[in-house]
Amino acid sequence: MAASTCFFQSSSPLPFNFKQRNNQIHISIFRIRCYNTSQKHSSVVTLTTDPPPVYSSVKAFAPATVANLGPGFDFLGCAVDGIGDTVSLKVDPDVHPGEISISHISGQTPNIHKLSKNPLWNCAGIAAIEAMKMLRIRSVGLSLSLEKGLPLGSGLGSSAASAAAAAVAVNEIFGKRLSVDDLVLACLKSEEKVSGYHADNVAPSIMGGFVLIRNYQPLELMPLKFPSEKDLYFVLVTPEFEAPTKKMRAALPLEIGMPHHVWNSSQAAALVASVLQGDLFMLGKALSSDKIVEPKRAPLIPGMDAVKKAAIQAGAFGCTISGAGPTAVAVTDNEEKGHIIAQHMVLAFQKEGNLNASANVKQLDRLGARLISSVHLN
Amino acid sequence: MAASTCFFQSSSPLPFNFKQRNNQIHISIFRIRCYNTSQKHSSVVTLTTDPPPVYSSVKAFAPATVANLGPGFDFLGCAVDGIGDTVSLKVDPDVHPGEISISHISGQTPNIHKLSKNPLWNCAGIAAIEAMKMLRIRSVGLSLSLEKGLPLGSGLGSSAASAAAAAVAVNEIFGKRLSVDDLVLACLKSEEKVSGYHADNVAPSIMGGFVLIRNYQPLELMPLKFPSEKDLYFVLVTPEFEAPTKKMRAALPLEIGMPHHVWNSSQAAALVASVLQGDLFMLGKALSSDKIVEPKRAPLIPGMDAVKKAAIQAGAFGCTISGAGPTAVAVTDNEEKGHIIAQHMVLAFQKEGNLNASANVKQLDRLGARLISSVHLN
Repeated sequence: MAASTCFFQSSSPLPFNFKQRNNQIHISIFRIRCYNTSQKHSSVVTLTTDPPPVYSSVKAFAPATVANLGPGFDFLGCAVDGIGDTVSLKVDPDVHPGEISISHISGQTPNIHKLSKNPLWNCAGIAAIEAMKMLRIRSVGLSLSLEKGLPLGSGLGSSAASAAAAAVAVNEIFGKRLSVDDLVLACLKSEEKVSGYHADNVAPSIMGGFVLIRNYQPLELMPLKFPSEKDLYFVLVTPEFEAPTKKMRAALPLEIGMPHHVWNSSQAAALVASVLQGDLFMLGKALSSDKIVEPKRAPLIPGMDAVKKAAIQAGAFGCTISGAGPTAVAVTDNEEKGHIIAQHMVLAFQKEGNLNASANVKQLDRLGARLISSVHLN
Repeated sequence: MAASTCFFQSSSPLPFNFKQRNNQIHISIFRIRCYNTSQKHSSVVTLTTDPPPVYSSVKAFAPATVANLGPGFDFLGCAVDGIGDTVSLKVDPDVHPGEISISHISGQTPNIHKLSKNPLWNCAGIAAIEAMKMLRIRSVGLSLSLEKGLPLGSGLGSSAASAAAAAVAVNEIFGKRLSVDDLVLACLKSEEKVSGYHADNVAPSIMGGFVLIRNYQPLELMPLKFPSEKDLYFVLVTPEFEAPTKKMRAALPLEIGMPHHVWNSSQAAALVASVLQGDLFMLGKALSSDKIVEPKRAPLIPGMDAVKKAAIQAGAFGCTISGAGPTAVAVTDNEEKGHIIAQHMVLAFQKEGNLNASANVKQLDRLGARLISSVHLN
């Protein structure tokens, strides 16, 4: 097997080329999971062949995400509009049927050279492979191009966005046969390899908005609708500082005293209630109130405590660490206010942490990963 | 001070009698907290005297409550319609002005003789005294009659209902000058003495519906509106078994592993989301999913595990321990189904716990403690 491709095992006589597929040659009977839109659950449908592509190429975008949100550690996240990763995918007769090849990785992201073109070691590649496995694709090969819009290891769900864009691109090119749960599961395979089996980035990147992960066995995702008539802006300030997820995870306590457990649980519950009720004042308070994770991680990010104070003094409803950091996230209801808050946060990183930082002021993404362009088959 | 009365300190020349008050003799200038209905926050209003009674007598009812609700341990509770405690209060010239006297305690409740008529040692008395203190009542005396509708130590918020009915009765008789927060704070004085400074029974008993307690310093209560168009029934099965709150609290772990903390927090958040979204299926799942408190307490209540299984097998959406037990609470969307579930639960207590049990099938109380009758002053 070539380093840049992945081959799917099959009892069928492979390879079949694309023309054979269009001639409706039925190879074998197998089953795939299909999305029941009324129930939002997977169901099993018997097909007589693997699904043909409906496009010759697609481009999909997946947004950045803020996981944890303070007391929502490891089960809550939300998507942020306007920044994210993009995956272009095309049916490629030069790629072995049933396989995927990463042709190109681009972007202004520092350390982009660290990303592997081996799909087995690349977030987009792993998620794309999983999505192809779920669809049992064996008749066409795909080539994938990844455009990184997010910095690596920043706490903005960079790996999740790559995975989400890839999984959605695969699903779109084959006619949207996978459920939301399937897409999240495909991306979880990637997250598992990179940072752990946590869906608090991939689920909101796929689904948009706020998502609560209630269960993994089986996967149960709860989308939490922030009222459409209300504005919610995230001020995301990313310092030039490496906060490896593993190190940030190692800083966590193994045991938690009952009073802190009760406190954090109540704050997580209050956060969810605030999201659903569109109560930004309470959302900010709950976001800022983590007594378990943030107190252990903030000291590892120079200036973080001062940045949080600066954000709140500048009028933010609340502030905490985004994901495992080092990005700080504050919330507000107005873009202009957001920029003022951002200035104060950047200044605090400089002054108290001796770190340069860049800022984004972005709205809640309510859509999630989506097709942004497609080319139909001739 | 007599055993049955409580005297409030004042710099004013006491006693003043009721007629003097009606003649608008201004005793002193002092301040009380008043309720700002638009803000739901307390504010300070300067009054020139203590408020006069607007009724000669009132009767107030406060509903039973289910605290904890599984993963909402110590910060979440809801009110249950149709069962609760009733307090009758009257202006009594035979009671020393500024004081309160408990004249009568009645009800079919076993162990009712355990309840003290000393207002300093009775939940209704303590809450009434606190409410009178907040209003700075010094010109009239009150006598209180308590009608217990709830069994003691059952996990149905018996002490909270007595306190809530008393605080609301005092507030009503003096013209509703206290805020919801004030009423809860008055009742917390009582809870503190009986079982600990927890508002997860008193807040829903005062406010009705589901209430999340986000903070105590200062008190921050979040009412969680269950959609008015949906039905929610509680199946409350109380075995003849004593489960003292202190013993049930001693059974709790002091430290909680991170995975269990994350799990329970996510379930609490899911529970709150389900309440607000009116999703009974998910509400039941979250209610049943506590991995921290229920596993420690259920073994102390004979048959509880079997009762939970029986409830779910009989069609309940979920089941857990109500408060600190021994009552088991299951949820359903239909009264008839509720009675069938109740039969199975009672049978399971008999069969597996060797305990007789009584059942109630009651709807969510959406009103909270309220005036049920009043007599105007002549």
